[in-house]
Amino acid sequence: MKYQHSTIIGDFVLDEKNILSKAKKKEELNKLPKNKLPIVLEQLKKKEYFSEFYLANLKITKQKIKESVSEDQLIVQAISNVNELDRTINMLIKRLREWYALYCPEFEHKFIYQEKFVDLVLEKNRQELMKEVGVEETMGADLDKLHVQEMKQLALRVRELIFLRKEHEDYLEKVMKKYSPNILELAGITIGAKLLELGKSLKHLAFLPASTIQLLGAEKALFRHIKSGSRSPKYGVIFQHPFIQKAKKNERGKVARVLADKLSLCARLDYFKGEFKAAEYKKEIEEKFQ
Amino acid sequence: MKYQHSTIIGDFVLDEKNILSKAKKKEELNKLPKNKLPIVLEQLKKKEYFSEFYLANLKITKQKIKESVSEDQLIVQAISNVNELDRTINMLIKRLREWYALYCPEFEHKFIYQEKFVDLVLEKNRQELMKEVGVEETMGADLDKLHVQEMKQLALRVRELIFLRKEHEDYLEKVMKKYSPNILELAGITIGAKLLELGKSLKHLAFLPASTIQLLGAEKALFRHIKSGSRSPKYGVIFQHPFIQKAKKNERGKVARVLADKLSLCARLDYFKGEFKAAEYKKEIEEKFQ
Repeated sequence: MKYQHSTIIGDFVLDEKNILSKAKKKEELNKLPKNKLPIVLEQLKKKEYFSEFYLANLKITKQKIKESVSEDQLIVQAISNVNELDRTINMLIKRLREWYALYCPEFEHKFIYQEKFVDLVLEKNRQELMKEVGVEETMGADLDKLHVQEMKQLALRVRELIFLRKEHEDYLEKVMKKYSPNILELAGITIGAKLLELGKSLKHLAFLPASTIQLLGAEKALFRHIKSGSRSPKYGVIFQHPFIQKAKKNERGKVARVLADKLSLCARLDYFKGEFKAAEYKKEIEEKFQ
Repeated sequence: MKYQHSTIIGDFVLDEKNILSKAKKKEELNKLPKNKLPIVLEQLKKKEYFSEFYLANLKITKQKIKESVSEDQLIVQAISNVNELDRTINMLIKRLREWYALYCPEFEHKFIYQEKFVDLVLEKNRQELMKEVGVEETMGADLDKLHVQEMKQLALRVRELIFLRKEHEDYLEKVMKKYSPNILELAGITIGAKLLELGKSLKHLAFLPASTIQLLGAEKALFRHIKSGSRSPKYGVIFQHPFIQKAKKNERGKVARVLADKLSLCARLDYFKGEFKAAEYKKEIEEKFQ
């Protein structure tokens, strides 16, 4: 008991120190109380205070910039990178397919799954690949090792980019688990991060109506609808969500509406540091549409 | 003397063997002589020969496809990759700059040279970078190691892509040294390969007039000139050539014309397996304009 008591006191002391030092810091950077303004303005007429005033101002601004970086921005940066990497990886694999087709054309379109294609190019030689495809003799040119080696180099780097993309996703998961656990649980990594990106920040996202969240990422179709009266879009980035993918075609709009509804609740829970309710919501939607 | 003699005979025997085997192969795949056509057509009326005829036809076609791959295509593939990698590397470094600016904003625009920027991010910590830039206190947020680590991962992959680009250039140099040594010597690796890409093949390039070679890669400006009468372009991809870069502004058009002239001669020398004269040409141009 005594031990526990002393630690509590210890904690308190520590806390008090913290509070004191924080208060001191705050004091340094606080705005001026209104009643003191005339006094300060009087002082400022003297030129010798100008440089000091300027420096203090600079310090406040710098501190504010430093404090303005939040998880929002880190998540937005990471998901932008993931998008960029997706584009890059697809482009480079397309180039690899075309290049490798000179050596082994039967193989070019056999493996639609991009990752599998890269792995096969790296791990098997042409003879083995032919067996994989089921062709005995290839139409490809018999190239020197020099050329084939260069293709494999490209494949190797592409594989590393694919690996980097996965790392970025793991990173996003870690950050979002702390920052927006509800959104992460209900929307998944990629869609969750994209929502944060499109909503600019968690705060902004939390104040958006559910119907806007439903259409985030479908702005082009939405404005086309408003302008020319074409059919209105039913979903934005949440279209990729397994719930909508699994749903029947005529039910997709309904699922999207319910999902966006719950996602908007999740954003609010996360922003106001509420409980973890996303798992419940998930179950609810699943039961409703199956 | 005797030894040399015997090797010559040896070479001859080897050659003869080669020629024989080649002749045999050719025989298998040769076209039908015209006078035998009626006999074959007669035979083809019988349905039992159909499948055999079909297979032989297929074999010839496959062989032709196999033989159709030339250095041209390999060079075009490699230079397309280099172009794609350039775009990708620039894009990813732009993203890295933006991301890293959250942590260390003073550093974002200091090193314009992309490669140097990536190296510094990888090799130095923030304190060292601040010294490099000459700023004492940073405005960047104090991020956890988790976040900084992720940025470094991106930098690492970008560095590997830069490395791959260099490898591709080395590869291009090797291939072009054998296939088009004159173009390589006078135009350099990248411009030479781009000329081959834009000219579709060495054969086609060799038959293009020098004035076309001068404007390869400036098609857009050329057609704008024809259509709307704006000023005609003076150079295409050869604009990047050090000769033109070094020249005075009012002499650039003249240098481009002379360079394109010599490049066209180089393409012809390379295609018809002529001598190596590019070094001479290079000297000529250098003397003329300095």
